[in-house]
Amino acid sequence: MLQNDLILKAAKGEAVSRTPVWLMRQAGRVLKEYRAVRNKFADFKQFVQNPEAAAEVTVQPVDIFKVDAAIIFSDILVVPEAMGLPYQMAEAKGPYFEKVIKNLQDVDALHVAEPESSLKYVTDAIAYSIDILANRVPLIGFAGAPWTIFAYMVEGSGSKNFSVARRMLYTEPELSHKLLHKIALSTAVYLQAQIAAGVHIIQIFDSWAGILPHNQYIEFGINYIKMIVDAVKAKYPHVPIIVFCKDAYNARAQLSKLNIDVLGMDWCMDPVATRNIVGTNITLQGNLDPCVLYGSENDIKTHTQNMLTSFGKHRHIANLGHGLYPDIEADKIKHFVEAVQNYKD
Amino acid sequence: MLQNDLILKAAKGEAVSRTPVWLMRQAGRVLKEYRAVRNKFADFKQFVQNPEAAAEVTVQPVDIFKVDAAIIFSDILVVPEAMGLPYQMAEAKGPYFEKVIKNLQDVDALHVAEPESSLKYVTDAIAYSIDILANRVPLIGFAGAPWTIFAYMVEGSGSKNFSVARRMLYTEPELSHKLLHKIALSTAVYLQAQIAAGVHIIQIFDSWAGILPHNQYIEFGINYIKMIVDAVKAKYPHVPIIVFCKDAYNARAQLSKLNIDVLGMDWCMDPVATRNIVGTNITLQGNLDPCVLYGSENDIKTHTQNMLTSFGKHRHIANLGHGLYPDIEADKIKHFVEAVQNYKD
Repeated sequence: MLQNDLILKAAKGEAVSRTPVWLMRQAGRVLKEYRAVRNKFADFKQFVQNPEAAAEVTVQPVDIFKVDAAIIFSDILVVPEAMGLPYQMAEAKGPYFEKVIKNLQDVDALHVAEPESSLKYVTDAIAYSIDILANRVPLIGFAGAPWTIFAYMVEGSGSKNFSVARRMLYTEPELSHKLLHKIALSTAVYLQAQIAAGVHIIQIFDSWAGILPHNQYIEFGINYIKMIVDAVKAKYPHVPIIVFCKDAYNARAQLSKLNIDVLGMDWCMDPVATRNIVGTNITLQGNLDPCVLYGSENDIKTHTQNMLTSFGKHRHIANLGHGLYPDIEADKIKHFVEAVQNYKD
Repeated sequence: MLQNDLILKAAKGEAVSRTPVWLMRQAGRVLKEYRAVRNKFADFKQFVQNPEAAAEVTVQPVDIFKVDAAIIFSDILVVPEAMGLPYQMAEAKGPYFEKVIKNLQDVDALHVAEPESSLKYVTDAIAYSIDILANRVPLIGFAGAPWTIFAYMVEGSGSKNFSVARRMLYTEPELSHKLLHKIALSTAVYLQAQIAAGVHIIQIFDSWAGILPHNQYIEFGINYIKMIVDAVKAKYPHVPIIVFCKDAYNARAQLSKLNIDVLGMDWCMDPVATRNIVGTNITLQGNLDPCVLYGSENDIKTHTQNMLTSFGKHRHIANLGHGLYPDIEADKIKHFVEAVQNYKD
């Protein structure tokens, strides 16, 4: 039995004694304890693929920030790698692919990921994390949404406009669907494997949700999130699912109709307006501007309290509206977590 | 008297025989005729600062694409340079500042731009363009919105999150307002000088409108656009003003209440939903996804016609939802322009 299951309760819409809180990218470069582990490895991928090290940094934020959940330390690009397209990581610039997907042959050369072999380092890291956590808080599993993974696999790296990936949706719709379908199948079995290994709740990240016109995002984005959600829920109906689609202003209504429990919000989305759009039958997660954590302790407290008031206590999981920026001081993160946990409505 | 004043009529809400069309970044690298002029100069800034060359490339799209307006060839960062902060241009990476704004001393060291001296190369280019255009179509003037200019001046270059610039809004609000005020004053006199030199209509670009929470964008973004709009309208009440705020989903209602004539829309904004938000007393501009122009002639025609049907004939100026991507073929641009100009509703 978990000692603190506030996040699971909030996700399911059950009553909670207070709003739970965690932070996207909480296991990362903001912590000197993380950097100490990271520096034992010559490169990022060796680190990600080492289950003991991944478990160690996964649990650090629980010990240090007292957050209400851990999230397994990994990267969304482990999925394309498990499909046959290895990624590289240049930490200053971000991840990239040396080979990109250009044509149907490239898509056909990929296989559906087999998590029990090529992603065993993740499920092992989950098992180790569960051991170290010793039922203190839930562990969150995650994966990228197919459109975001597709964008990286076709573009090769982060991009200003993702015009190469977006171009493919117009010029090669069949190829695009075939690739997205393969990514969605891989992601579904990967998330099922994470749950089998012990995660209590999962989050699907669609970082590039905001760069497609509405109908295109439904066709090439939401449809494949739905495929994953339905596959995971068919096997694990009681495991809550969070979907975080950054900048997906137009898609909030459609997303809320999926069989998901929590909708993640970026910092530009208004809590009240979003609640009006999605109705009361879903939990909202977010959405403090990460830049607030550059401010003073007092300002962090004020902004956090205002955010909590806007969301209300019911069906809310406090978080940032995006991942932590790596140059934020650890103490500022503590102020944020404490402001949530000490809030009296 | 202009031979073709469709854009001015559409901007003012007057009846038009057909929807007018131009493209953001129509004067640029997509044209081999542009590259021929560009290659005469060792660097980009020499080119921008040469009025004859700037006028030549300004008019090229009117000759080649038969668009319904020219837009003066320049860069939004000429304004900070005229305030005392010179920019550099690395064409592969985009513009950047060697020195950035870090503190109040840096802000105090800047002056309000004096267009009659430090931006004379732009007003000269406008005068030359007006000569070459010989009343065929209107000439559009432009400037960046204060928040976007601020973001570059503080961040130093384009950025994934603009976390340095956004941080400053939280940690140094007074400094931020002081800098934005100086930028707005400079931009207002700059746009007035462009009108005095001959432009018929102006556009204000707020490229980074979408990365601020709503209240912050009102305080640090829209307020300064309003300052410019009011100053320009006080002197030139009959010159239409277009405001294009990319990704400003939350701000459309507020923007439509400014004393502007046209609201520019990016490709993710829905024409019908946007019209419902802004009402009928404003013209909409946009918003074809630039990636459509990677497709076939037939697909370009279909997408363009669908867009025109969504907007309706009244109070619409056809355009892309963002600037042309530099690798789009010139013929595809002609297909787009022709699809608009031959459309029968």
